[in-house]
Amino acid sequence: MLDTAAGTKIQDVLSTLNRALANGNLDSALELFTEDCYWRDLVVFTWNITTVEGKAAIRNMLEARLHGVKPRDWTVDDNEPATHADGVTESFIEFDTAHAHGYGYIRLKDGLVWTLTTVMHDLKGFEEPMGYSRPFGAKHEEHQGEPTWAEERETELAELGVTFQPHTLIIGGGQGGIALGARLRQHGVPALIVEKNERPGDSWRNRYKSLCLHDPVWYDHMPYMKFPNTWPVFSPKDKLGDWLEMYAKVMELNFWGSTEAKRASFDDATQTGTVIVEREGQDVTLYPKQLVLATGMSAKPSVPTIAGQDVFAGLQQHSSEHAGPDGLENKKVAVIGSNNSAHDICAALAEHDVDVTMIQRSSTHISKSGSLMKHALGPLYSEQAVADGITTEKADLINASIPYALAADFQKPAFDAIREEDAKFYRQLEDAGFMLDFGPDDSGLFMKYLRRASGYYIDVGASQLIIDGKIKLESGSEVEKLTEDGVILEDGREVSADVVIYATGYGSMNGWAADLISQDVADKVGKVWGLGSHTPKDPGPWEGEQRNMWKPTQQDGLWFHGGNLAQSRYYSHFLALQLKARMEGVSTPVYGLQETHHLS
Amino acid sequence: MLDTAAGTKIQDVLSTLNRALANGNLDSALELFTEDCYWRDLVVFTWNITTVEGKAAIRNMLEARLHGVKPRDWTVDDNEPATHADGVTESFIEFDTAHAHGYGYIRLKDGLVWTLTTVMHDLKGFEEPMGYSRPFGAKHEEHQGEPTWAEERETELAELGVTFQPHTLIIGGGQGGIALGARLRQHGVPALIVEKNERPGDSWRNRYKSLCLHDPVWYDHMPYMKFPNTWPVFSPKDKLGDWLEMYAKVMELNFWGSTEAKRASFDDATQTGTVIVEREGQDVTLYPKQLVLATGMSAKPSVPTIAGQDVFAGLQQHSSEHAGPDGLENKKVAVIGSNNSAHDICAALAEHDVDVTMIQRSSTHISKSGSLMKHALGPLYSEQAVADGITTEKADLINASIPYALAADFQKPAFDAIREEDAKFYRQLEDAGFMLDFGPDDSGLFMKYLRRASGYYIDVGASQLIIDGKIKLESGSEVEKLTEDGVILEDGREVSADVVIYATGYGSMNGWAADLISQDVADKVGKVWGLGSHTPKDPGPWEGEQRNMWKPTQQDGLWFHGGNLAQSRYYSHFLALQLKARMEGVSTPVYGLQETHHLS
Repeated sequence: MLDTAAGTKIQDVLSTLNRALANGNLDSALELFTEDCYWRDLVVFTWNITTVEGKAAIRNMLEARLHGVKPRDWTVDDNEPATHADGVTESFIEFDTAHAHGYGYIRLKDGLVWTLTTVMHDLKGFEEPMGYSRPFGAKHEEHQGEPTWAEERETELAELGVTFQPHTLIIGGGQGGIALGARLRQHGVPALIVEKNERPGDSWRNRYKSLCLHDPVWYDHMPYMKFPNTWPVFSPKDKLGDWLEMYAKVMELNFWGSTEAKRASFDDATQTGTVIVEREGQDVTLYPKQLVLATGMSAKPSVPTIAGQDVFAGLQQHSSEHAGPDGLENKKVAVIGSNNSAHDICAALAEHDVDVTMIQRSSTHISKSGSLMKHALGPLYSEQAVADGITTEKADLINASIPYALAADFQKPAFDAIREEDAKFYRQLEDAGFMLDFGPDDSGLFMKYLRRASGYYIDVGASQLIIDGKIKLESGSEVEKLTEDGVILEDGREVSADVVIYATGYGSMNGWAADLISQDVADKVGKVWGLGSHTPKDPGPWEGEQRNMWKPTQQDGLWFHGGNLAQSRYYSHFLALQLKARMEGVSTPVYGLQETHHLS
Repeated sequence: MLDTAAGTKIQDVLSTLNRALANGNLDSALELFTEDCYWRDLVVFTWNITTVEGKAAIRNMLEARLHGVKPRDWTVDDNEPATHADGVTESFIEFDTAHAHGYGYIRLKDGLVWTLTTVMHDLKGFEEPMGYSRPFGAKHEEHQGEPTWAEERETELAELGVTFQPHTLIIGGGQGGIALGARLRQHGVPALIVEKNERPGDSWRNRYKSLCLHDPVWYDHMPYMKFPNTWPVFSPKDKLGDWLEMYAKVMELNFWGSTEAKRASFDDATQTGTVIVEREGQDVTLYPKQLVLATGMSAKPSVPTIAGQDVFAGLQQHSSEHAGPDGLENKKVAVIGSNNSAHDICAALAEHDVDVTMIQRSSTHISKSGSLMKHALGPLYSEQAVADGITTEKADLINASIPYALAADFQKPAFDAIREEDAKFYRQLEDAGFMLDFGPDDSGLFMKYLRRASGYYIDVGASQLIIDGKIKLESGSEVEKLTEDGVILEDGREVSADVVIYATGYGSMNGWAADLISQDVADKVGKVWGLGSHTPKDPGPWEGEQRNMWKPTQQDGLWFHGGNLAQSRYYSHFLALQLKARMEGVSTPVYGLQETHHLS
């Protein structure tokens, strides 16, 4: 509900907060917060991505950072109407600091600040050249006679990594590396992306042929340049590949394809990395100041060790190596696993009349794609949301403004609605023997993604094939061993197979650091991803943010970037600002640097 | 000035018009119009692009078309506030017809309709799939197992023009052909673009190296997909080339590069064309129903015949063949001509210390690029306009809503302001011997463009080089002849030269039809471009529209498309609708088919 009084109410709180913070009066400031309060900060206060929970933690953060940040001019964003519903008053807000323009989102409960999200919009003096300040392009007046755009670009491509060094080296040229590369290009940070595949987009093109994005187009935009209105809801993988290739070209990214990173080290004295990459067969040594692993949280295949893998006579492959049903006609295929990839692969095989069996070892959350759009994503990311004026930028901030500690509560109603609406479908799935769950606390798909990045399937048709028996299902048992011609489950069931596909997921991204740098550095940094929620595959202690993602790690100069398209879009903004500040010598005292609790 | 009363006033007129037209009461309808009234129609009433001027002409048009069109539901577009200023009340309007959704723009003077512009938004039953109706992308449910997007696209690329024929063949793959190709793809019209250069964008890349667009980014968007906010104001030619190449890729255009159209003919009996193209050295015969020449109004070089061209010892080239200053160091260059290309070429040469002389044969209009932005384009196409909610789509319609008969009056104040603001600059230019004009009726640059597509330079720095003497100038005389080592002017002056560049413009596009089809067809169609304004190079009689552009010609199945980026964007919408309707067998009675008055 729109509410003009809501705006006034929030402005009153902000004005009081403004005075209290200007005077360094933390008692007065904290009186404005509820007892169960949350302050999520994206870079602007903490040079970190962190949520401080409760008054004591907020006091600690402010004691450490208030003097340096000097926040002021807290106001409701007049262009965005405040709303009031269900006892919560909320709005977009603006503020200013000594070094940055800030923006944010606030929720009041009983007139007190319940959640506050503060984000860095830009660094003063280093604003991105766009809109009114976009480059001129043509070389007029005193710039005439200078090299043309094409000549400058040719020189840059020839010299970067050869006669001048990238400030930031990005390893991995999927959507994560490309989104970050675009941000850094805008910031004037010399950056180089190295990617083992030949072309931008190949990391999608090389996957199984029926793959389409499971997230809809409104959620998937890249930074700066949105998909056109004509773009399909769920991008086919090759079409997305073409988009990323085009995007890298027109955004003028420095992208070395067919280039594999082999070894890296950090010299703490010079604060410079040494990275050896093999570019089209030739070793090249690079000396970046900052190294970003954007290799994808779904890129380090995890294959379980199972007895008999050496005696199985047929083909064994990880889901990431699987290209689709071509050539598997008349084969029997066993797919171990029951998440997204397992379902997609089984569906494509079944549709091509391949005899395929899914081996489900533990329960899986299923949401039908349409239901997910309707109840979970639609309010922020849909054609209707766009028509209602919820731009991608606004949707992203609203999404980011929900502290992870509250996220499950925010999510649960949508999945309760889905469970009710699709009750018949779920019953049919269970009747077919499928083991279902809605997450350990019934919070559904996105929490599983945020906590463990696994344990779910967004149904785009495979579930019906399971219900109909076109995908055979063996569920409820671990795999004991492989034989020459099949899989034996722990409860004794046998699945005969010519091919075994391990749709068994991926390892923590710090595994890449182990391979590339050293086990020591990988261990120092620790597990990447997860919130510390004490739920399966997300061990505590509670971290309250994605571990090691898009923010400083225990290894200076080493960063992790990635996630789905939406996360790559949104968080690349903050990672780019952190890198830009370091390049420009802006002071970046990190508050609340995460500790390492798990090695992988 | 916004004015809520304005909306009501217009709605009253529209409601009366609605009733009168519904009842076929033309007298009542015409009472609503001023004596000097204009109705510009883009396809929706006339299946033509035509302006009917005055009550008698409007009556004629309505008598012919009212029964077939059945317009109804005329309303002010509630989302766009009506305005009232200087005695004119105006707004966007909506209406409906038997076959289409209509949109438009209206201006009232003294409560009567002064200008009415009606445009076809879409054809009922053939709406473009976008936004809410965008394609699904993924193949779910009953579509599973069908070929993937990549497989379908591969099949299309392999088969189009080989085993199945394009409905529309577009000759020329510059911005015109590409924009139209994108529209037709959206409409599901099988279309093929053939382009003699290798890649989309090469028609820009191959031009002189300092070239940047003279129009700003806000004016230059392609259909469906806007340049990002980071894009330079004036696109360097190679950057634009990359954009067009990537656009063609992601919009899934069927583009045959390195393909030259050699001969074409029409079979009136089967209403099918036969076009022989040479594709990478191989002749291929195509049988399209519709043939579009999008070869560019600036693509058929016009080189004057001058005595002594056979005795001149050095290099002679047309401006379109000129690549830039490289290799011309220590040469003396004479550039014949004084429009955009002549200035750009001279400036690049002068900046590279080449001895260059511009030979100005007749007066030229000059506008400084910044002044043009500020006074002429800025109100509709600028960062500020975008911030004020004037989308490209709205700007295009407002722009199109000014009848050509009134355009000079609308333009003059902007150029009066420019002339005053830049008075010192113009004085300096004249002091340097440059012959200036502001058009025959002081209406400035855009009228010159619309009437003759020549006679002006948008100053991006060359004028200062002329003022400073860095570009030498010989003005006020025609060229008499070339000698072995120079150019002799009619008044006896000599310009010694190692190189002569003919920046002498381009011929009428029906010259392409003569080369490709026959002189008969070229003559039947007649001159392309120009309004019939009785001003230099735009002979009468008054046509009131661009001759032969984007609309039916005297040759069934033959169309001309092109213009600058803005025209290619806007008019491709209407050309695509005309082609789509013909493909679908929708009745398309053309009202007011233009007559042929000039052969070239």
